[in-house]
This record gives sequence, C-alpha cells and structure tokens, in this order.
Amino acid sequence: MAKVLTTKEENYSQWYNDIVNKADMAENSSVRGCMVIKPYGYAIWENMQHILDGMFKKTGHSNAYFPLFIPKSFFSKEASHVDGFAKECAVVTHYRLKNSPDGKGVIVDETAKLEEELIVRPTSETIIWNTYKNWIQSYRDLPLLINQWANVVRWEMRTRLFLRTAEFLWQEGHTAHATKEEAIEETQKMINVYSDFAENFLGIPVIIGTKSDSERFAGAIDTYCIEALMQDGKALQAGTSHFLGQNFAKAFDVKFTSKEGQLEYVWATSWGVSTRLIGALIMAHSDNNGLVLPPKIAPIQVVIVPIYKTDEEQIRVVNKGKELKEQLEKIGLTVKLDDRDTHKPGWKFAEYELKGIPVRIAIGPRDIENKTIEIARRDTLEKISISSENISDYVLNLLDEIQKNIFNKAKLFREKSTHRIDSYDEFKVAIENGGFFEAHWDGTAETEAKIKEETKATIRCIPLNTSNEEGFCMVTGKPSKKRVIFARAY
Amino acid sequence: MAKVLTTKEENYSQWYNDIVNKADMAENSSVRGCMVIKPYGYAIWENMQHILDGMFKKTGHSNAYFPLFIPKSFFSKEASHVDGFAKECAVVTHYRLKNSPDGKGVIVDETAKLEEELIVRPTSETIIWNTYKNWIQSYRDLPLLINQWANVVRWEMRTRLFLRTAEFLWQEGHTAHATKEEAIEETQKMINVYSDFAENFLGIPVIIGTKSDSERFAGAIDTYCIEALMQDGKALQAGTSHFLGQNFAKAFDVKFTSKEGQLEYVWATSWGVSTRLIGALIMAHSDNNGLVLPPKIAPIQVVIVPIYKTDEEQIRVVNKGKELKEQLEKIGLTVKLDDRDTHKPGWKFAEYELKGIPVRIAIGPRDIENKTIEIARRDTLEKISISSENISDYVLNLLDEIQKNIFNKAKLFREKSTHRIDSYDEFKVAIENGGFFEAHWDGTAETEAKIKEETKATIRCIPLNTSNEEGFCMVTGKPSKKRVIFARAY
Repeated sequence: MAKVLTTKEENYSQWYNDIVNKADMAENSSVRGCMVIKPYGYAIWENMQHILDGMFKKTGHSNAYFPLFIPKSFFSKEASHVDGFAKECAVVTHYRLKNSPDGKGVIVDETAKLEEELIVRPTSETIIWNTYKNWIQSYRDLPLLINQWANVVRWEMRTRLFLRTAEFLWQEGHTAHATKEEAIEETQKMINVYSDFAENFLGIPVIIGTKSDSERFAGAIDTYCIEALMQDGKALQAGTSHFLGQNFAKAFDVKFTSKEGQLEYVWATSWGVSTRLIGALIMAHSDNNGLVLPPKIAPIQVVIVPIYKTDEEQIRVVNKGKELKEQLEKIGLTVKLDDRDTHKPGWKFAEYELKGIPVRIAIGPRDIENKTIEIARRDTLEKISISSENISDYVLNLLDEIQKNIFNKAKLFREKSTHRIDSYDEFKVAIENGGFFEAHWDGTAETEAKIKEETKATIRCIPLNTSNEEGFCMVTGKPSKKRVIFARAY
Repeated sequence: MAKVLTTKEENYSQWYNDIVNKADMAENSSVRGCMVIKPYGYAIWENMQHILDGMFKKTGHSNAYFPLFIPKSFFSKEASHVDGFAKECAVVTHYRLKNSPDGKGVIVDETAKLEEELIVRPTSETIIWNTYKNWIQSYRDLPLLINQWANVVRWEMRTRLFLRTAEFLWQEGHTAHATKEEAIEETQKMINVYSDFAENFLGIPVIIGTKSDSERFAGAIDTYCIEALMQDGKALQAGTSHFLGQNFAKAFDVKFTSKEGQLEYVWATSWGVSTRLIGALIMAHSDNNGLVLPPKIAPIQVVIVPIYKTDEEQIRVVNKGKELKEQLEKIGLTVKLDDRDTHKPGWKFAEYELKGIPVRIAIGPRDIENKTIEIARRDTLEKISISSENISDYVLNLLDEIQKNIFNKAKLFREKSTHRIDSYDEFKVAIENGGFFEAHWDGTAETEAKIKEETKATIRCIPLNTSNEEGFCMVTGKPSKKRVIFARAY
C-alpha cells in the first residue's frame, strides 16, 4: 500500500492534518474557521461527553441550557472579561433578510436592525450570572452546581482543526457558592476531575497547576489548569477551572442572605473542556501509521477481519467472526466485524491502523481448524496467534494493558522531555527542541513577557503537586520560592 | 397550601405558563425570544435525547456536527428554501467590537465587517449538502445516514416557552440515497420512529400523515408529520420527516456514479424533532396540580418522603427510606429520597405533584411497624397502603401501568375530540370547541386558504393509515377521495 501519511519527523504539522483528514475525523467547512466534525471524530466526542457527564453528575452537577446570544452590554459589566472575550467574536446586528432588488439572492433588510447587538457566546459567565441573579436569594439556594454542553464562537484568526477553531463544542460548568472556601474547593475538585479524565481515560499525563497573572482567564481570581505535552515537545492546555471570586456576582449584583441574615455577594467558579481534547488525543499518542486510541475512548475497541479465498471459506470465517463479535459484545465491548467483500484484508488492516482501533482480530480458515485467532494490538503493532478459547478474558486483559501502556508511554516521553534548568542562556538553546522546563522565575509579568518575546515560551503553570524550592530567577537572578513550568504551547 | 397554578379551565395558556414556571422547567431570558432551560426541564430533554439517539443508531445513523453559521448565498441556491427560512433569522455582519470612544462599554468595529454575511442556522440542509458534495462520488458512498444534535435560531415574532422560541434545541437527520425509492423508505422509516417515540415513551398518541402543498417544508417534495392533540383541542406538530427529492442535490451539484456507471443526482431526506416536544408533553398530560410525566421520560420515577415527628422516628424512617431507595435503584429505577428537614411532608407532596413524579412513596413509623408503605400515583392521584414485601415488583408494575394509563387517557381524549364532519357551516361552529376534524377537501390551495382565513383551522395532515373514501369537499362540493384532518394548531 502507498504511504498514506506524512511522517511526524518529516513535518509534524502536516502529519497531524493528515491524520485528522485520513482517519475521517474532521474537515474545514466553507465558513472560515468553522469545522465539520465527521462521524468518526464525533463518536470520540460522544464518548468524552458520556464519561465527563457521568463524572459531573457524580459530583452533584446538573445540566441546563442558556441562550446562544448575549446582549453586548453584558460584557462591559465585568471589566477584564470584556477585554479578554467580547472583542473577537461574531456580532449579530440584524434579524431579517429580503430579496435583492436585482432579483439575485437575498440581502440584509436594513430596517430589521437590532436595537442592541447580540454577541454569539464566546463563554457564558455573563448571561448565566445575569440569570442566577433571579435564582439566588438565600443561602438555601446555594450551592448552585450547573453545567452546560454547548457550542461557542471565538473569532480566531489562525485556526487548526480541533486545536483552535472559530466555533467549537465544549462544556462549561458555572457554580455559585456561599463562601470563598467552598468555591475554591469546587474549583480544585473540578480540575482534579479533568486530570482524572485526561490520565485515566485519554491516557494523557497532565500537570495540574495555576496560571500566572498574564495567562489567567479574563475575569478570574485564580485559574487552575491541566497541561499536557505533545509529541513535538509543545504544551497543550487541556482544561481549565476558574475561581472567579465575587467578580461576576458584583458585576450582575447577585447577593444572598446568609444563615446569619447578612446580605452578601455570591462566590463563583467556572470550568471547561472542549473538542480541543480530540486534538490533544491525536497528538499525544498517534504514530506514522495513524491514530492510536486508548480503549476507553475508542468508538470501536475491537475490529474483526475475516480472511478467505473461496466462497465456502468466506461463509465459515464470516460466521466465526459473527460468533466472536457476539461473544465480545456480551462482555461490554464495542466490536466491528468488517465482512465487506469489496476490500482486501490488507486494505482493511491499514484502514483500522489509521483509525486507531486498539485491537484487530484476523480469522482465516486455518485458524478455525487450529482453534486459533490472530490478534494485533495497535499501540505496539505486535501480532500474536492465540488459542481461541478464553478469548473474552484475553481481549479484556489486552485492552486494559493497552490503556495502561499508552499512558505509560506518554508519561515516559514527558519525563524524558522535562528538564530542570537554571541558566537562561541554556534555556534559550534547549527550548528549540521542545519539552517542559522547570525553572525559577521572579514572579513578575515583565520577566514573563521578556521570556515570551525572546523564546516564544510561556509559563504553562505554577505546579500544585511539587514542593517549594528556594532559588533565583533564571533571567533576573531575583529570589524565587518555586520552580514553574515553561514551554512553547499550542 | 395556597393554590399554585391557574386552572386549565380558567385560562389554559396561563395554566401552561404556570406549570413551566412552577415546575422549574424553563424561563424567558434577557434575550428576546430565547429561553433558559432549567435543570429539571433539561433533564427531560436529556432523556428524550438518550432514547431518540438510541433509536437513530439502531436504524443505522451516525452523529456528526456541522457549522452554526451558513453563508448567506447558500440559501439562495434552493428557491423555495430561501423563502421559507432565510428571511427571519439572525444575521452576523461583524466579527469584532472595540472600546467606545466615550469610554462607556463597547461598540461594533465597523472595519471588521464580513465580506459575506453569515446566517445563524435555522436548519442545516444547505451547509450539509454543500459538505456532502465532497463526500459523495460513487454509489459506494451511499446511503449516507447522518444526524446532528444542535441549536437553531428562527427569528419568531411571538414566542412561547418550548413551543416557539427564537433559539431551540433539536436534532436534524440528513440522509443521502442512490434511489428515490430508498429515500422515500427512509423518510417513512423516520416518521415511524418518531411515532413510536411519541406514543411509547411520551405517551402521546399521534396521527401520521403527509402535509398539504401549503404546509410542506420549504424545499421538500413531501413532508410527513406526526400530529398530536393537546388538551385544549389544539393540534401540535410533534415531528416531521421530509422527502427532499433531488432538490438540494441539484442546488449544490451533488452527483454520484451509479452501479451502472451513470452520473446521477443524489436523493435526500431530512427529519427533526425539537425541545417543542417538552411543550407537547406538558400540554398532553398535565392537570391542575401540575405536570404529569410518563415514567419512561421522567427524570425521577419514584420519590420517597419520610414522615416523622421525633428525632428517633426520623432516624428510623430515613434509614428505611435509604434502604428502599437502594432496592429500587437496583432494578434500574431513578429514585429520589427527600430527607430534607427544612420542608414539611405536605409541602413536599405538593412539590412532587407539581413536578409530575410518577410514583410517590411515604414512610412513617407506623408503616415500619406494620410492614407497609403508602404509595401515591401521580396520574390518578390514588393512594394505597401496601405490604412492603415485594415492593420492587409492585413499583415496576405500577410504573408500567401508569405509562399505559397516561397514553390511554390521551388516546381516549383524542377519540372523543375527533369528529367526522361534512358541512362547512357545522365545521365553522364546531371548530370553536377545538379537536380534530375529519373532512373532505377538494385538494386545492385556494379552499385550504379560505378555510384558514375564515376559521383559523389548517390541514394538519392527510393521514396515512386511513382508507380512501369517496366524498365531496365540505366547502366547494367538489369530489374528494379521502378525508383529511383539520384543526387549529400551535
């Protein structure tokens, strides 16, 4: 078979685009910056949604739905929020079209102009806190733990499928609390949910930390994030959870009567992950043969390919394949039997490698005679022939092993690509090869900006789970209490 | 307790609004015509999604996602579609805001004007068929069976929560086929899926039929619909499935090479149901005490309310309640134990009646002694005391009976409200009391328009499952081959 993909080594960026395209995950649409998520890519998103939604509900959250449009004036109510979000976004100004006088198509009806323009939501804090104002009167109404699955629009200038698109799908949690402590606890709880999801389902090791002032969410007091390392050595922010303090409560005048009878402003959090995670999933694990999917997130976990020459053989192996499919579905696996006779086995093998199906089973007439089957695992590309007895247990264990192996491989890669560095000169050279850099920083926005300008690296996070260490900023030599993580990022 | 709801008899429309409001289902937002779907209302939508999604997948469909925005010019490509949809909708003209020169808030940046305006999708045929053009080359690419869960916007002037809102949530199936026959078969298959869902899950009896020319979807050759009757005698269109012929294939130049090597236009269908179904659910079953939910769609199927006076009693009955909850969850039911001590049992009873929970269980200290529990069913408001042994079987059977009873009650109401009528004079009087009217019609748009103008009644559908019957149009006396269904409609 002809080489399908550009290799990672040749051109990482093209390799990524090739996988998205050839594995039938998404494509650019006719609308600038907006993608079409194709069925195979969307099936991965559905699995992500299903798992995350369960985690949100288990932690006491309910789903709701708020309007797509936000009145322009709402954004101006929270000063830093408007700078961060309201400016680069789609603006609805009219609500009617009419026939063009030249008879060719339709034009905007200028008489149908909105009194106040509507912004297509880039994030929903403002419209939600404007709503919460009516829902919250007393401490009995708190906490309010709500999540929304929705589409959002940010008018990005340079877009890339999944990683950065003008429209994307996401979930946004918006919670309201009676105390600061409870809101901070919620913020941390949700970043831990994201970390659990990334590591144990997507197989992507992440560093939990907080953002520096310059990288913080517009309107937040503190932004927690999970940061992952991609195979090209660039970092990817995979999820964020914001402690919003009383900023939005003050902007929208949301107060409650406390147990003590005091009127107080409500404390807020918000947190989200998006279809960007599909991009992370691709870049964290895939190889030059295509996608590599962790079994827990794969839309198809096992594919069965019958091998035959004669019509009589075809009937026998396809029947055996059906039997096996049923057997594996009974233990809860998602299985596809590809019994199409329009494509050769070799073509099918390549196709399912490209699509990252974790386990491939081939059955030929000799296998039936010998009571064996051939199993190939996608992560290592190893093939073995095993007895077809106890096949269910074998596949179940194998999927488990693949899940772990994918995570461990990514973790090992991250460990090898993480460097402690104390010299800015060395840093400037080393950053060219990518990776995470643990370095001391003096805590000022000036130094951070200088590093960004000179090296394109940013502070990915101030990690939570590392101990303090006295040291000196690698740039200014000023004292520092803790190493932070630098990297170039998506 | 004070009367919570306006009664149906007093003011049907206010009764509906009261239920939506007091049962915490939805509310109007600050954006004209856009609703906030509150957690309880959204939980019903999630159940609808879950069931429908399973039905779509079982019939071979996959989900995908297409852009929110559609270039204005796309609409002009299908002549009748533009008239039906493109005109009353939200138009995005700019992609940036800037600080106002007076320092107060933000204004539209006139330099950031889109070259071509974007329409917020009112329905996605155009953007999807523009995409399918690249996906379909050969008969091997067909059928293409895709569904999308999405938000859509239609700039309605008079809106009502769930029934007619500027933004609503829905699913839209868009399929592509090699032959006309196969496309028609798909159109019919999906209207049958909707009918199955409406009757067997929502408990709403529906009439399956086709629309007259004037009521057809803009761009369709044939529109199939399911029509339900609400308790005020008005009809509600609960779902539609369209045979689009080759209209969109021709508009977007989507051709395929047939098995015989011919280049042919592709045949299309589209079909959808929306959050409007929540409105139908409310209006079909509810009473003056609140919502009545069929068990198969209820977010909570059983609520347990502990009754006690002393602290010691509280511990015993709450423990018994927990035990019972666990027992019922084990057989797959969704159960809520309301052990809050901030509210009295009477308040809770009214609350869960309002929210339509199908089965309410009360446990007091005497029940524990006597090994009994008190069960109240929401549909009939009957209460009985039963032995607490075999409670699982009892509740399971009861839920089944409630599901059936709700459907049968709605069906009986529809039967009593359906009238065969042959005189237009009688029709003009009878229509004032609502209901379905089976009448002969001469098949012309003129007669249809005259009836609509004079009586506000429209042809809901030309029913599929009734036999032909020679007769004469009730208005013009011209010959007719079949009775059609007239009603005033939402």
